[in-house]
Amino acid sequence: MNNTVTANIIIIGNEILSGRTTDSNLNYLAKELSNIGIVVTHARVISDDEKEIINNVNELRSSCDYLFTTGGIGPTHDDITSASIAKAFGKNLIKNQEAVMLLKDYYGDQINESRLSMANMPYGAKLISKDVKRGLGYYIDNLFVLAGIPRICKTMFEDLKHILSGGDIIYNKTFTINIGEGIIAKPFSDLQNNWPDISMGSYPFTTDNIYKT
Amino acid sequence: MNNTVTANIIIIGNEILSGRTTDSNLNYLAKELSNIGIVVTHARVISDDEKEIINNVNELRSSCDYLFTTGGIGPTHDDITSASIAKAFGKNLIKNQEAVMLLKDYYGDQINESRLSMANMPYGAKLISKDVKRGLGYYIDNLFVLAGIPRICKTMFEDLKHILSGGDIIYNKTFTINIGEGIIAKPFSDLQNNWPDISMGSYPFTTDNIYKT
Repeated sequence: MNNTVTANIIIIGNEILSGRTTDSNLNYLAKELSNIGIVVTHARVISDDEKEIINNVNELRSSCDYLFTTGGIGPTHDDITSASIAKAFGKNLIKNQEAVMLLKDYYGDQINESRLSMANMPYGAKLISKDVKRGLGYYIDNLFVLAGIPRICKTMFEDLKHILSGGDIIYNKTFTINIGEGIIAKPFSDLQNNWPDISMGSYPFTTDNIYKT
Repeated sequence: MNNTVTANIIIIGNEILSGRTTDSNLNYLAKELSNIGIVVTHARVISDDEKEIINNVNELRSSCDYLFTTGGIGPTHDDITSASIAKAFGKNLIKNQEAVMLLKDYYGDQINESRLSMANMPYGAKLISKDVKRGLGYYIDNLFVLAGIPRICKTMFEDLKHILSGGDIIYNKTFTINIGEGIIAKPFSDLQNNWPDISMGSYPFTTDNIYKT
């Protein structure tokens, strides 16, 4: 490939690692990024732990073009993503004044300290959107910090998509055959060898007790 | 906690990173492991790439009690997990003779080279089950090598579960309230501070346009 643009994704949340919640953001982001020519090469699920966030963000942000995190930017005590990312970047955690204004405007007399804590961001962070309803995600360098709630993660991605520069689009085509994987393996491997520039994979499944690929 | 037993999980598969397939094994394994007192502290999704598999397996197997991989142990050319794991462990990739016998017995005159390649395992690997229908997963040291197909991943885990030694069981309790997260954040944080041994998290959602937590 001539022009490969890569992304990594870090899903932050104890609730995913405990199995209490099933993550759906990885699949959503992977699909959307593929569609604009960005290849997700690596993803991680980590706990709401400061050291884990700092280490994983710092390790991955230098090894891909775009890094995304989801989770941990809400108003409660277990939302420590922004404070940890500030430390990862060696920046102060400040109250982003634009976010403060937007939150005050949105919540009116229902504003409180917890809600204002959603304006805590690393110095230098830029808001993805000016609409509190669509979530106050932000970016700093090549890192995009998104919400864990799938609906908000989605609106944030829609709002940031125009900032990303994709590479060559990868086209893919799926063929379904009613033959087990073990029968086609040899000719399929020959096919791959004859077309080394195309990445071919096979995924077996059964429906109505028929082995399919 | 007195006795914490940890697990890490590596999901191997380009089809997950491209968004073509949604992984469900992570959630299944996380739940099952939690139930027997094993805490999943970290998970990764990586590509079907030899170097990626070697590096990630070697990095994680020393930092947790049990490491699980899913994916890449079928009969086709893109199934490179076993060969890569052999390299990660510095062992030869051999034909496991017990697996060869089981495969020959199961497939009869439908046996072929591709199907026999599912018996390729690192020297020293032990089969999880003797039933080809339940999948020829295996383990070596603290690493359990499972299939990517959810149905087979599940039977393999059922068959290996008795080998694992769990730690203290973590009990959890979920309360649903019809109040937004931003309102309860302060008293909820006080509650956490008063009970530091209990890990408390809040997860916001909306149904019928009502903010709930």
